[in-house]
Amino acid sequence: MCADRRVLGLDPGTVYLGYGLVAQGTQPDVPAWGVLHARAGLSLPERLLYLHDALNDLLARLRPTEVAVEEVFVARNWRTALALGHAHGIALLAAARAGVPVATYATATVKEAVTGFGGADKAQVQALVAQHLGLSAVPRPDHAADALAVALCHLWRGAFARRVAEEARAP
Amino acid sequence: MCADRRVLGLDPGTVYLGYGLVAQGTQPDVPAWGVLHARAGLSLPERLLYLHDALNDLLARLRPTEVAVEEVFVARNWRTALALGHAHGIALLAAARAGVPVATYATATVKEAVTGFGGADKAQVQALVAQHLGLSAVPRPDHAADALAVALCHLWRGAFARRVAEEARAP
Repeated sequence: MCADRRVLGLDPGTVYLGYGLVAQGTQPDVPAWGVLHARAGLSLPERLLYLHDALNDLLARLRPTEVAVEEVFVARNWRTALALGHAHGIALLAAARAGVPVATYATATVKEAVTGFGGADKAQVQALVAQHLGLSAVPRPDHAADALAVALCHLWRGAFARRVAEEARAP
Repeated sequence: MCADRRVLGLDPGTVYLGYGLVAQGTQPDVPAWGVLHARAGLSLPERLLYLHDALNDLLARLRPTEVAVEEVFVARNWRTALALGHAHGIALLAAARAGVPVATYATATVKEAVTGFGGADKAQVQALVAQHLGLSAVPRPDHAADALAVALCHLWRGAFARRVAEEARAP
């Protein structure tokens, strides 16, 4: 059932992990968003453990049918890419453990889906996320807004992919 | 107690995850080594889930007091660094969940510790790993030999760091 789709978007980092839930059709607890925050003073392994366990709890509470993860391109530094990979990996792991299908999207793909332009700036993306979700203000903080954007991207791209498939099946 | 130290070395990838256990003093079940292998046909999230759960089981079975992870430098491609980050992240996560302290070492540091030369080739490292552990043949496959090497690196560097600390405390 299309009306039951609930997409949890994730913007994973090794200190902050933004999340945002969107749905197809009106659902009483949607949209929802926020940020998981590993407290200062924890080591990297401890932060990963905290974020992974908190994400497991979040998946159990929000019951998404799909997960979409933003894949940030970091050309400047392999060590930054490795660190982002840590955060990205625990997000994929939590989705797999919950048995929820997961897709990843490059930042430019998310911007293109939300604004129609892959080079849009962050403020434009956030303003359109708020408008699409019928919110009176831009969701805060930025990590949560980014997570809602990747969730909308997945919802719409999925809808488009299905429409194309239906047309292909049409006689 | 120094004699109780058991170091589990890990060489994490997103398909193969090499492991090797070494210890200070003689312990009946040491050395031990092997490779966890996510079967073909699994998606990336499913592979991460399999490897993470298998690693949790391994930590429970081998009861290391410390974990050492090889951190491979990949300059050529941010996507490869991101993928390695996935595997590295689940290794750190499993160690944190087991409550075992974890250290990471660059490949050059491991080679330097085992052979005395950071630019040593793989065959030299493997031959010296076998010699140090009193094995009649080089441990196979390569991922397991690499994991034993990072475990030895951690054991020796830890011993050195302690000796320095003891000298610093001496009157």
